Amino acid sequence: MPSISNKGQSMPQSPIRKLVPYAEEAVKKGKSIYYLNIGQPDIKTPACALQAVKESNIEVLAYSRSEGSETYRQKIAAYYAKHDILLGHNDIIVTTGGSEALLFAFGSIMDVDDEIIIPEPFYANYNGFSTASGIKVVPVISKIDNNFALPPIEAFEKLITPKTKAILICNPGNPTGYLYSKEEIKKLADIAKKRDLFLIADEVYREFTYDGNSHYSIMQEEGLEDYAIMIDSVSKRYSMCGARVGCLVSKNKKVIETALKFAQARLSPPTLAQIASEAALDTPQSYFDDVKEEYVERRNTLISELQKIEGVKVAKPKGAFYCIVELPVKNSDDFAQWLLEYFQVDGETIMVAPAGGFYSTPNVGLNQIRIAYVLNKERLIKAVNILKEGLKAYKD
Amino acid sequence: MPSISNKGQSMPQSPIRKLVPYAEEAVKKGKSIYYLNIGQPDIKTPACALQAVKESNIEVLAYSRSEGSETYRQKIAAYYAKHDILLGHNDIIVTTGGSEALLFAFGSIMDVDDEIIIPEPFYANYNGFSTASGIKVVPVISKIDNNFALPPIEAFEKLITPKTKAILICNPGNPTGYLYSKEEIKKLADIAKKRDLFLIADEVYREFTYDGNSHYSIMQEEGLEDYAIMIDSVSKRYSMCGARVGCLVSKNKKVIETALKFAQARLSPPTLAQIASEAALDTPQSYFDDVKEEYVERRNTLISELQKIEGVKVAKPKGAFYCIVELPVKNSDDFAQWLLEYFQVDGETIMVAPAGGFYSTPNVGLNQIRIAYVLNKERLIKAVNILKEGLKAYKD
Repeated sequence: MPSISNKGQSMPQSPIRKLVPYAEEAVKKGKSIYYLNIGQPDIKTPACALQAVKESNIEVLAYSRSEGSETYRQKIAAYYAKHDILLGHNDIIVTTGGSEALLFAFGSIMDVDDEIIIPEPFYANYNGFSTASGIKVVPVISKIDNNFALPPIEAFEKLITPKTKAILICNPGNPTGYLYSKEEIKKLADIAKKRDLFLIADEVYREFTYDGNSHYSIMQEEGLEDYAIMIDSVSKRYSMCGARVGCLVSKNKKVIETALKFAQARLSPPTLAQIASEAALDTPQSYFDDVKEEYVERRNTLISELQKIEGVKVAKPKGAFYCIVELPVKNSDDFAQWLLEYFQVDGETIMVAPAGGFYSTPNVGLNQIRIAYVLNKERLIKAVNILKEGLKAYKD
Repeated sequence: MPSISNKGQSMPQSPIRKLVPYAEEAVKKGKSIYYLNIGQPDIKTPACALQAVKESNIEVLAYSRSEGSETYRQKIAAYYAKHDILLGHNDIIVTTGGSEALLFAFGSIMDVDDEIIIPEPFYANYNGFSTASGIKVVPVISKIDNNFALPPIEAFEKLITPKTKAILICNPGNPTGYLYSKEEIKKLADIAKKRDLFLIADEVYREFTYDGNSHYSIMQEEGLEDYAIMIDSVSKRYSMCGARVGCLVSKNKKVIETALKFAQARLSPPTLAQIASEAALDTPQSYFDDVKEEYVERRNTLISELQKIEGVKVAKPKGAFYCIVELPVKNSDDFAQWLLEYFQVDGETIMVAPAGGFYSTPNVGLNQIRIAYVLNKERLIKAVNILKEGLKAYKD
């Protein structure tokens, strides 16, 4: 039998995936589960987005342009202008989710064995895309004690080698919920320019900022035009994760030209979802206001409930809808599995994401979990109570 | 300024793309163009597919499972059973088009610098996916004189090295229209087993077979279970290229398990398009009968009109909706551009795909073009007339 590639063997499996069979088994046994493990919001998709698809008069569901339809890109550019990000529609390539935008970015700027520096904990699939692209993730550790703020810039400096091609950040952060300040972005911009590196920012949670903090995009930073590559997606903004529409944005013409070749090879992003995404841009501001209010309430509830549990440490998120929680357990993988297999409160349990998978440094974050606060307040309170009772009952 | 990767620089640009600015310029000047250059059929998408999307009651457009929804995969398995391809829904991973299925297959079985043998001319984007995956295409030339039949198996034997991991065929073929016989598939199966190689078959044109010929899938070949990887797509079958839904199929559990890791990293295939694709499986047989009849007529018209032109040689396609045409010109790139820039008959011209891009051997096929017969009979006759008059007027 011919063998699987080394690349295929090295492809990491998401830490959540390992738990899925235990969750399925628990459900079979009649347990109810609060899913805190993935960023699939329960928020309704804007009606205008879904309605546009229903009202579309398509006779032939044809390819769109490889870079995305022109009208859609023009409307995206207008959306960015409202966020003080000024660019033209030709600086945008529409992709199949933020995932594909990352793959195009990696392919366009890095060759096999090249290195990318990423503050960890980071979105676990960055590991997968790096393995798929044959590149190496070089992590720089950020700490729960300062809410996962940007590590000192000297820590980045120390890790730069001739193979380093880029720094990647997620802002606001999944899984940390940390929102980088303008000053932190400027520090990253400085080192990118000084050391001739690309700065890639995954800004898919742009709208999800709390406590009056505003988001500062790498695309707003003057002088960074040739270095900045922004990754974006409609998934979280409009609660339409299943659309699979995102984009890669850069003012570096070479980057766009190169990414377009990858885009052309796969022909086109999904047409129906582009119709929904274009219409979603007309979502009234009240939708976002409501959503933000909802998330702030959820966050406040979650954090205050968690802080009541002895031995639990939590980083207060300023954005996105995740937080990292440190637990008084040795191994959160085992604990998360135990919650599904052996624990329940009135027939209910919780599914959480062990945080080890968000670090690429081995044996870091083993006592942490990530909680996605994608459930309503009432359900979150019940879920945290299960965590509390679980911690009391668990022996490791 | 940081530099683009070598990989990005090597990404091939589709030969059709080079012509796009000339086509756009021609349209601006008021010329009408018959587009024979791409496989975007004018056939209507089945109404049931589009209707299902309109009738869907989605409130949250959520991720689907990374491997595709279970009901959809079960229905795909039932569809294959009707084509004498027997497999379970767990042998299927739903992908974002056939394109992504190829990328997952390449990533799962090949590492950087590994080799894949492909009979040429072949679908130009195989080059792009190979470059993106860091692997090397080793072409084996097939000839217009025998309608691009399978080259002698000894020609494959000669090209196999320790780095060879797979053979890839497209059946029926884009751009050749050639339909491999059962005997040819068995020859390929034998060499795959003997030399321990994967046999990948892109079977997206399965239904498009003419003259009473039936399609023999690599998945029907007994004993090939561990070696066979099938690529499929809804794009052409239901004229829904813009859906971006395909699948990777294999009975080799290791392959599926590995491809699933790539699938999980990108989260999910598009949800709306999966709804359309699942419903498309209910398309009545009469739709396909009509479509096939239409394509047979188009093919017959096209071939007989082409054969009337002096100096033109054409391979008669037994499947798909493409044919390779040899022209009495030195360089079909130049000729195709000239048709757009300088030629017209009553204000109309044609856009064709120069065939050089379908070969990876340099300087082969330079006097050939690919014609996609995706236009109706009347329009095809006019288009071939323009080709005829163009050839008369052209001096190279």
